[in-house]
Amino acid sequence: MKIKNGAEYIDSLRKVHPVIYYKAERITDVTMHPATAPHVRAAAMTYALADDEEYKYLATAVSHLTGNTISRFTHVHQNVEDLIKKVKLLRLLGQKTGTCFQRCVGFDGINAAYSVAYEIDRKHGTSYFELFKDWLIHIQDENLMVVGAMTDPKGDRSRGPADQPDPDQYLHIVDRRDDGIVIRGAKLHMTGGVNSHEILVMPTTAMDERSKDFAVVCAVPVDAPGITMIFGRQASDDRRDKMERIDSGKPSFGAVGGEAVIAFEDVFVPKERIFMDGETEFTGTIVYRFAAHHRANYGACKTGLMDVLTGAVSYLTQIQGTSKASQVKDKITEMIHLSETLYCSSIACSAEGWPTPSGAFMVDTMLANVCKQNVTRFHFEVARIALDLAGGFIATLPSQYDLESKDVGHLVKKYFSGVSGIPTEHRMKIARMIEAMTGGTALVESMHGAGSPQAQRVMIFREGELEKKIKLAKALIGIPVKS
Amino acid sequence: MKIKNGAEYIDSLRKVHPVIYYKAERITDVTMHPATAPHVRAAAMTYALADDEEYKYLATAVSHLTGNTISRFTHVHQNVEDLIKKVKLLRLLGQKTGTCFQRCVGFDGINAAYSVAYEIDRKHGTSYFELFKDWLIHIQDENLMVVGAMTDPKGDRSRGPADQPDPDQYLHIVDRRDDGIVIRGAKLHMTGGVNSHEILVMPTTAMDERSKDFAVVCAVPVDAPGITMIFGRQASDDRRDKMERIDSGKPSFGAVGGEAVIAFEDVFVPKERIFMDGETEFTGTIVYRFAAHHRANYGACKTGLMDVLTGAVSYLTQIQGTSKASQVKDKITEMIHLSETLYCSSIACSAEGWPTPSGAFMVDTMLANVCKQNVTRFHFEVARIALDLAGGFIATLPSQYDLESKDVGHLVKKYFSGVSGIPTEHRMKIARMIEAMTGGTALVESMHGAGSPQAQRVMIFREGELEKKIKLAKALIGIPVKS
Amino acid sequence: MKIKNGAEYIDSLRKVHPVIYYKAERITDVTMHPATAPHVRAAAMTYALADDEEYKYLATAVSHLTGNTISRFTHVHQNVEDLIKKVKLLRLLGQKTGTCFQRCVGFDGINAAYSVAYEIDRKHGTSYFELFKDWLIHIQDENLMVVGAMTDPKGDRSRGPADQPDPDQYLHIVDRRDDGIVIRGAKLHMTGGVNSHEILVMPTTAMDERSKDFAVVCAVPVDAPGITMIFGRQASDDRRDKMERIDSGKPSFGAVGGEAVIAFEDVFVPKERIFMDGETEFTGTIVYRFAAHHRANYGACKTGLMDVLTGAVSYLTQIQGTSKASQVKDKITEMIHLSETLYCSSIACSAEGWPTPSGAFMVDTMLANVCKQNVTRFHFEVARIALDLAGGFIATLPSQYDLESKDVGHLVKKYFSGVSGIPTEHRMKIARMIEAMTGGTALVESMHGAGSPQAQRVMIFREGELEKKIKLAKALIGIPVKS
Amino acid sequence: MKIKNGAEYIDSLRKVHPVIYYKAERITDVTMHPATAPHVRAAAMTYALADDEEYKYLATAVSHLTGNTISRFTHVHQNVEDLIKKVKLLRLLGQKTGTCFQRCVGFDGINAAYSVAYEIDRKHGTSYFELFKDWLIHIQDENLMVVGAMTDPKGDRSRGPADQPDPDQYLHIVDRRDDGIVIRGAKLHMTGGVNSHEILVMPTTAMDERSKDFAVVCAVPVDAPGITMIFGRQASDDRRDKMERIDSGKPSFGAVGGEAVIAFEDVFVPKERIFMDGETEFTGTIVYRFAAHHRANYGACKTGLMDVLTGAVSYLTQIQGTSKASQVKDKITEMIHLSETLYCSSIACSAEGWPTPSGAFMVDTMLANVCKQNVTRFHFEVARIALDLAGGFIATLPSQYDLESKDVGHLVKKYFSGVSGIPTEHRMKIARMIEAMTGGTALVESMHGAGSPQAQRVMIFREGELEKKIKLAKALIGIPVKS
Repeated sequence: MKIKNGAEYIDSLRKVHPVIYYKAERITDVTMHPATAPHVRAAAMTYALADDEEYKYLATAVSHLTGNTISRFTHVHQNVEDLIKKVKLLRLLGQKTGTCFQRCVGFDGINAAYSVAYEIDRKHGTSYFELFKDWLIHIQDENLMVVGAMTDPKGDRSRGPADQPDPDQYLHIVDRRDDGIVIRGAKLHMTGGVNSHEILVMPTTAMDERSKDFAVVCAVPVDAPGITMIFGRQASDDRRDKMERIDSGKPSFGAVGGEAVIAFEDVFVPKERIFMDGETEFTGTIVYRFAAHHRANYGACKTGLMDVLTGAVSYLTQIQGTSKASQVKDKITEMIHLSETLYCSSIACSAEGWPTPSGAFMVDTMLANVCKQNVTRFHFEVARIALDLAGGFIATLPSQYDLESKDVGHLVKKYFSGVSGIPTEHRMKIARMIEAMTGGTALVESMHGAGSPQAQRVMIFREGELEKKIKLAKALIGIPVKS
Repeated sequence: MKIKNGAEYIDSLRKVHPVIYYKAERITDVTMHPATAPHVRAAAMTYALADDEEYKYLATAVSHLTGNTISRFTHVHQNVEDLIKKVKLLRLLGQKTGTCFQRCVGFDGINAAYSVAYEIDRKHGTSYFELFKDWLIHIQDENLMVVGAMTDPKGDRSRGPADQPDPDQYLHIVDRRDDGIVIRGAKLHMTGGVNSHEILVMPTTAMDERSKDFAVVCAVPVDAPGITMIFGRQASDDRRDKMERIDSGKPSFGAVGGEAVIAFEDVFVPKERIFMDGETEFTGTIVYRFAAHHRANYGACKTGLMDVLTGAVSYLTQIQGTSKASQVKDKITEMIHLSETLYCSSIACSAEGWPTPSGAFMVDTMLANVCKQNVTRFHFEVARIALDLAGGFIATLPSQYDLESKDVGHLVKKYFSGVSGIPTEHRMKIARMIEAMTGGTALVESMHGAGSPQAQRVMIFREGELEKKIKLAKALIGIPVKS
Repeated sequence: MKIKNGAEYIDSLRKVHPVIYYKAERITDVTMHPATAPHVRAAAMTYALADDEEYKYLATAVSHLTGNTISRFTHVHQNVEDLIKKVKLLRLLGQKTGTCFQRCVGFDGINAAYSVAYEIDRKHGTSYFELFKDWLIHIQDENLMVVGAMTDPKGDRSRGPADQPDPDQYLHIVDRRDDGIVIRGAKLHMTGGVNSHEILVMPTTAMDERSKDFAVVCAVPVDAPGITMIFGRQASDDRRDKMERIDSGKPSFGAVGGEAVIAFEDVFVPKERIFMDGETEFTGTIVYRFAAHHRANYGACKTGLMDVLTGAVSYLTQIQGTSKASQVKDKITEMIHLSETLYCSSIACSAEGWPTPSGAFMVDTMLANVCKQNVTRFHFEVARIALDLAGGFIATLPSQYDLESKDVGHLVKKYFSGVSGIPTEHRMKIARMIEAMTGGTALVESMHGAGSPQAQRVMIFREGELEKKIKLAKALIGIPVKS
Repeated sequence: MKIKNGAEYIDSLRKVHPVIYYKAERITDVTMHPATAPHVRAAAMTYALADDEEYKYLATAVSHLTGNTISRFTHVHQNVEDLIKKVKLLRLLGQKTGTCFQRCVGFDGINAAYSVAYEIDRKHGTSYFELFKDWLIHIQDENLMVVGAMTDPKGDRSRGPADQPDPDQYLHIVDRRDDGIVIRGAKLHMTGGVNSHEILVMPTTAMDERSKDFAVVCAVPVDAPGITMIFGRQASDDRRDKMERIDSGKPSFGAVGGEAVIAFEDVFVPKERIFMDGETEFTGTIVYRFAAHHRANYGACKTGLMDVLTGAVSYLTQIQGTSKASQVKDKITEMIHLSETLYCSSIACSAEGWPTPSGAFMVDTMLANVCKQNVTRFHFEVARIALDLAGGFIATLPSQYDLESKDVGHLVKKYFSGVSGIPTEHRMKIARMIEAMTGGTALVESMHGAGSPQAQRVMIFREGELEKKIKLAKALIGIPVKS
């Protein structure tokens, strides 16, 4: 691991120079810019834990390729234990940052692309797998952060890639040369994109024969020519931009992953970084594997966030003198119950993991989809309960400026106090953190990250083995079962 | 009605001079300041509809005191029809503004205080009722906006008014003079406070004998000496402050009511504006009536907001090419179903209205509480479904600056387009409105406005007539019923 | 009203002689047979209340046809007050019987057929309306019970009436004669069928031109030649059949409506009893009106049932010594909350009633559908909470025989006792009533009676005015609205 | 394993002679009596699978005490793999029987008592552990079925064991002799009690010093003198009693566990079968361990039942011609989703298993409680959806007698048919099975078996580590954390 800790990671970002826009202006240093720095710090935690004696048993792994100790985020899962350790690492990071730490997108991309490259080669006699391993060893040794780039803009959603009026709505190959390919298109919602080192491009959906130019997997440095990133707005983002420490709620780490558009305007990719080129029959597989891994994660990291939120609300009820009320305890119980229900599915789909032909371990797909589906419900409900317990002042609290004002500061201090002995400032900080963690952007991420709810339902129905279940029912009442 | 329309209302606000702080600075003109102007415009709609031929049958009423045509918002409900017209007016205003138009707080305060003043007089031989009517005729004739001021800071919530270490945590009388009283304390979450003309102060909870100084109802002009308002922060408020038209989502009317702290630092109230002074046995009644009216309203105005949100999401699915999908229709059906369920309870508690001794009509308390309780659930669920249907770009969309940028504008236009023929700008505007209507502040208001969920549950249990229901059960199985 | 009270109603049933089978045997006297007698008694309550000074203001009405005082169940709603009185009557009857009292099916059929007959005549110059009024005056004067017969067997649900392999899957005209028609088919789930005097046949769905023979409305006496009824099984029906008073749970009135198949094997209907014959374009209207009225009712009668269930559970917690626990109170609050939410929609759709061209008043269709949709959710949830509070012994309680056994009676008395002073028998009776009211049949009725959940969703979407809502949204953000 | 398969198990039951009453009469042969035979057959499946080549890898284990191959139901979990195999075995048995197969109660009792006996000895120098192992080897070698007997009647639930007016409301020691003890009291809801060989008595709650006589763990044969069982009623039990094959719904295996009261009227227990006697400080531990194991199971066996129910409903929609409708697929997806969510928690709490000092493995307590809590919600919701999809005829279907009647059989066959080619009898059988699996008793079992919902909430709150979570929150916003 060349990058050994959080500080070195931050330093490393200063050496790459991606083209990033935010509110129509260039960001030249993501580690310093107030819009991106919190996300850099959150990602840095993935590096920091690998250097922390208490946590490195989770945060590192031994490479099956080199035998070196590597960041777990660059590891290919070799067994069920790896899958479960990942779950525990993600929950821990959720607890430490209270937000998205971004790095599992590339992690899941690596695991999906690795296993699929192997299978393409086996079928077609190509050599993607060796190329991929070479690239992966580089990532592991350098300890780079990779953004997994899957979601295309999709334009008119009633049409597939080959039928769009504008073909660029799905990233595709516009030129094939002897030494590589040229790609055009965009990837949206790219979590951690602006503070990654590398982009792992993958197709966004299962494709048919007509879409050969869209079936591409490849790796590109974030500052390759032709790449432009546009960093998205977030709820209350200006507070963060203005460095309003209290009002921004989670000043250190932000409230979401920090998503960007990555546009590819005719980007060249050399041969050795291409891991799929036109094998459309494998597009479904890579999407399905990436999605399953990623959906599994949400029951882990979001549980970590809910742990923080539960703690925040509990502390607030102590400040407000309501923590002993039976209905308060009951609602906190419900927050914990829903959080742990999510955690169960992350653990379960890992415990039921299975080896792909390459040896890389996959989670159980059904249970991983169930996991994510519940996130799209329970995170909202947990937030709703948190807001119930917190009280209406979450929506009406004056600003930090008022707290510190010589004119009205005394009124804010007096009238937003709670039980005696706890500073009003604590109550305000807790309130702002709850505001940031339950507001729009944070929850939208739980809804659509790793695939929208309907995507999970399609998988759950497909993997539901209805024919088998019908046989069980028939057998119990003596209706003949045709096998 | 001296103030005849929206423009005159806005003009009238320039003639009062309350002390208002926002981010530690004075706001001198709420009609122009970007933080407050949207809320002024929303409240102005209540004036505008009274001047609109299409809607004045709802927006006006005939005063039972003077026989004059008045704004319905200054009217005392005389029958069930009044109650139902109010519900329809509120839903209409919700549809026209997509937000809180604030004026029902004073409206409900007027109705509660009117009926209670009558009953105090009847018991104690006081003359609050005549004073109140005089004040009310003034409000009706001038067509003033009144903020109903009930919620105290409450400090340590495990203690009542008389047991707080700091007595100012509940507004109270600090001096009684021949010509009036002096009050101190604060009222929080004052919806429409900064753009009202008058404050109607009411107690926040039922009180006992020991709390005589806290049992006060009175009216105060917003610019009375000793009054200071602090305007609260809202989600993404800086976008509004910076006049970012698209990014602020609902540029005309804002996303919530515009709440403020109103601090009373030794404010003098003359005798003729005092409508309760120490009659603690009526504190419960006024709270209960105000709350019932106000809870009833939420099933009306919020349904109007959900109508807008349902329309916004429907339009977005058309833009995105998904409007024909069966699961999309099913989710929109659910949004409508939940909205109309809320509306039912507003209509029902009005249809079951009953006259108080003063002749003022009350809604059915049980059904009004049921109404608000469901708002604290269904508004969140409707928002959740809206975000499901809208898609993940709600959380990652670049800014209006980027849309208009010469550097990256072409990328934003291209990659956030939908079906051909609809400008990307429309998709972004709809997305931003959905963001604003489903984010934190907007929903917190539905949770805690008109009382937190537990307050409704206490009332529902109390009014549940358990003993009567036990008798029904016993009768059916032949267990003797002691009457 | 020729039939003046419950006893006379029971007596009247002995004078009609429908062909009824139950478990393959004929039932010759429904008033005595243990399978049907409880349902007779429940229906008798609708007659009894009309003779009860306390309730006759609800249970009777003045006929707009004759000016006579009639049972409300034979009345055509003339205004909103009628609709609301109906709601209160139904809730009251639910409280008095704890079950379905059946008579609103015919009631709703009368109201739907009345208004549609008028409109057919207006369009086609037929004279159904006069015939219908004649028949209705007869029903009113005699005070007969009418079963509204709508639901056909439907065979293969993927095909309509005209495309069934077996045309009898939808009731239809098989012969037209000078003096009348001959009909064949069946109506399923006929609530109160075995203890009615008359059958009002209606089509089950909207039909097209090809289905003229299926578009028939007519009235038939229950003992017309060719009619055979088969009474359905119910959960734990044998307990009732064996007159096990305690174990049957609700010995007086049963737990559901008492449903039967009514088969029509070439039944002749004379001309004067035909109210639609082939006017397919009105089939949708009559279904939609009947359904709306019937769906509206469910929020009234089922609330009455839930009142009983809430009382039963409350009493049981008193017996068991748990009534003071905070979580018990909270769950009872939830039962009440859900019940009253349902009640709101019944009241609301009535308060928003409107006159059809015939003068008969209709409920608001949207709100009536919303009402029923919530019944399919909340009745289950209320039952679930009841079972939670009641305890596991609901499923394991020994029989009444054991209670009374000389061998083990002492053990049952001892080990199923609660707080001292209340007989074990009371606890058992309450438990059995809860068992009967929360078990299968009772809840299935709430799911599918008045139409299955999907039927309501179709109506809610259809009536949701999406285009209007889209305009509201566009207006708020300045997107041009094409009218 | 002396008892080698299902037939031998059934045979073995004929050799024990417990005193069993049902409807006030003695049952002399539980294997033949229609009330108990279905439950015997369900339990026999646990024996049959151990003799089935396909399943014995799950259904058997190797005894850590003797090295012999034993039934898994008599095994002490030695590792995580054992816990996970148990989960898979339980789901499989749920699929094969569609009901409770009863034997896990003793299984969990064995695991709890084993680990606690070890710990009592370690603290007190007693020798319970050796005695327990001797008894367990006997159970394993003979392959006996053990009923775990925990739940006491509890009388007035507002009082503990020592404060009951009638001390027998909690089973207790009434005499201590040199060679053993005499116990009195009762255990309720004893699943599988009537067809077990042995009873393992355990305390029902954590107890204090004053309750020494109530703190008893011991084993008693089912036919020990002084023991009387009373078999409880179930929903629609008479259908089963009358051998109505179709109407009883699940003729082979019944719909629940077959619960009985077991009364102990001064039963002598010899010294070598006593495993706790007065060590009150361990009562909490044994309850907590038994409960955790048992709660973990519900996510496995009930998922098996839901698999059957999902299959039954799917088949029914095929028969009815609705299986292709989008809303049908969506509801089946939801049934699967909820089922698999439950399964996740069973797998997860097993994957997170941990060794007690005795070496016996425990499940994760938090996750096991979360599991059971969800069962009390999701099983009801799955049943509700099943009833939605099945249709109203579940509640109105005529009897098997009618189907076979020469008078009305042709009508039943005709009018309850579906798509052509599938016999009406199949539709009726499926309907009756759905009725049996969604009716009262079956669901009550899911609510209260393994502890009522509130019991789980208490544990979830207690194990929620709120203090740790508060620290996480404080750390994120820079509020000092006192260790």
